[in-house]
Amino acid sequence: MVLLGDIGERQLIADFRSFIRPEGIVGPGDDAAVLNRDVVVTTDMVTFDRHFAAGMTYEQFGWYSAAVSFSDLAAMGARPTGFLAALALPANLDSQAAYDIMSGIDQCAEFCGTGIVGGDTKTGPGIVAGTALGSMDGRRPMLRSGARPGDVVAVTGPLGSPAAAFKAMEYGIEAEDAKDLLYMPIPRVVEGMSMASTGAITSCMDLSDGLGTALNTICSASGVGIDVELDFIPRGPCVEDVAAQTDTPVEDLLLNWGGEYELLFTVGKDDLDKLYKAEVEFAIIGMVNDGVRPELTNDGERRPIGYGDY
Amino acid sequence: MVLLGDIGERQLIADFRSFIRPEGIVGPGDDAAVLNRDVVVTTDMVTFDRHFAAGMTYEQFGWYSAAVSFSDLAAMGARPTGFLAALALPANLDSQAAYDIMSGIDQCAEFCGTGIVGGDTKTGPGIVAGTALGSMDGRRPMLRSGARPGDVVAVTGPLGSPAAAFKAMEYGIEAEDAKDLLYMPIPRVVEGMSMASTGAITSCMDLSDGLGTALNTICSASGVGIDVELDFIPRGPCVEDVAAQTDTPVEDLLLNWGGEYELLFTVGKDDLDKLYKAEVEFAIIGMVNDGVRPELTNDGERRPIGYGDY
Repeated sequence: MVLLGDIGERQLIADFRSFIRPEGIVGPGDDAAVLNRDVVVTTDMVTFDRHFAAGMTYEQFGWYSAAVSFSDLAAMGARPTGFLAALALPANLDSQAAYDIMSGIDQCAEFCGTGIVGGDTKTGPGIVAGTALGSMDGRRPMLRSGARPGDVVAVTGPLGSPAAAFKAMEYGIEAEDAKDLLYMPIPRVVEGMSMASTGAITSCMDLSDGLGTALNTICSASGVGIDVELDFIPRGPCVEDVAAQTDTPVEDLLLNWGGEYELLFTVGKDDLDKLYKAEVEFAIIGMVNDGVRPELTNDGERRPIGYGDY
Repeated sequence: MVLLGDIGERQLIADFRSFIRPEGIVGPGDDAAVLNRDVVVTTDMVTFDRHFAAGMTYEQFGWYSAAVSFSDLAAMGARPTGFLAALALPANLDSQAAYDIMSGIDQCAEFCGTGIVGGDTKTGPGIVAGTALGSMDGRRPMLRSGARPGDVVAVTGPLGSPAAAFKAMEYGIEAEDAKDLLYMPIPRVVEGMSMASTGAITSCMDLSDGLGTALNTICSASGVGIDVELDFIPRGPCVEDVAAQTDTPVEDLLLNWGGEYELLFTVGKDDLDKLYKAEVEFAIIGMVNDGVRPELTNDGERRPIGYGDY
């Protein structure tokens, strides 16, 4: 007998993928599935146990639970068209907390241009299973598999603040601006739609499992290598401060933690103009090469980038 | 402070409905939501705690967890186009059990003409949060709100076996045929599509919360009364036997228990021909009237039908 806990989440998800059929245009292995007739759909489970960061409110937990799925739609370039929330909540929870969770979900859905269209409620340990639906409106979905050697690698915004927030909590340091980003991540829905509209993006993925994991996933899905220049990675609020105060390498905060909701993408060098015209804000962090894995260059030294600890 | 457990599930679901917006054609209060552009979607949470009947296999639990959502699509008359499975499973679960659950989900999806298109996996107490997607293909969705006085009330098949299976377990009586129906309910997807194709159905709902609850819901949503003749309700395998052996009134097994997956519907008397032509099998159990609640007639005596204990 092999216990589920001994298999590891990454292996289990890979194993379960064999059950997923190519019913739609885009099969398993991307941020969301695209079904025929232009239905984009993704589901995520968020739990009190694992995702309720210290200091978070129930409303923020609700927002967070919806944001993770909308971020997957954003990575495909889809326009959100609905959200379903299935909640398993403890019977001894203050009922106000339950309404606050629903209110947070509702606010996040509204921020993403849509609303709650259905749900279910059961007794349980504190779990939100969310499903986000979206439409491509004729845009081509952005996949993880199209990066080509010579492409530019970029992110839609600064990184590291959610990791800095966790570290700050551990050490009892103030880092309010970082905590706000951890508690209420902004799904890059508008940015994703603008990016997909250009038709120029060769690959894209959200950073919810961290930059290290995302870089490895794009390399593996596209069959390429990526060289990232550490100094190019934009740093969010509190990142350098917390790194210095806790004696943590900045690169650890930038690469190895999850909870980030910017998008990572690749684009042909000659197509950068299209992104500027679409008014997409981004920062170039490296280049795609004909290798097989992501590597980090720092002070002229190069080393492999791992999946991170998330 | 009001604890969630003190509110009661029905009240909580009613309260949460205020968050659900009319993004689509069909709003909250039906078996599934219908979004613009013909996306039908529903989500359900099934837990080891509440839905893992004694003697059930993990494969059957997986089947069951998918069947409940496909049954909601069936009640709308939708053709299933995909299923998403988010699993929260204990780390100390035998990994084979996890694969068996996925395999059961897969088999049920295949039975319903579709497949698993996505999912998520987390550690948790044993929960499957399933989302089923479907398409109306131009058919009008069957709602709960269209029953009219004078309509015929019918069900797609015999009832009471799942309740008989529960009772049999409690009393240690054999009732294998009933248990099979409890463990692997058949979502009436083909029947629902045929029914919706006729355009004749005035209201429809699945029986997952029991016939008593469904009758009350249709009455309340349609603003009508319903008179059901006890002798007309078709009885499934083991129902009369178990009722006799356990000294339980047959009507309790037929009305007050959940876990049924036949469809309840209403149709104009003059439109019954359309159902015969579409080769829909059904049994008439009563009539819609201009009252406000469902009532049961037995040996000429009439009494109100409650929501049941489920």
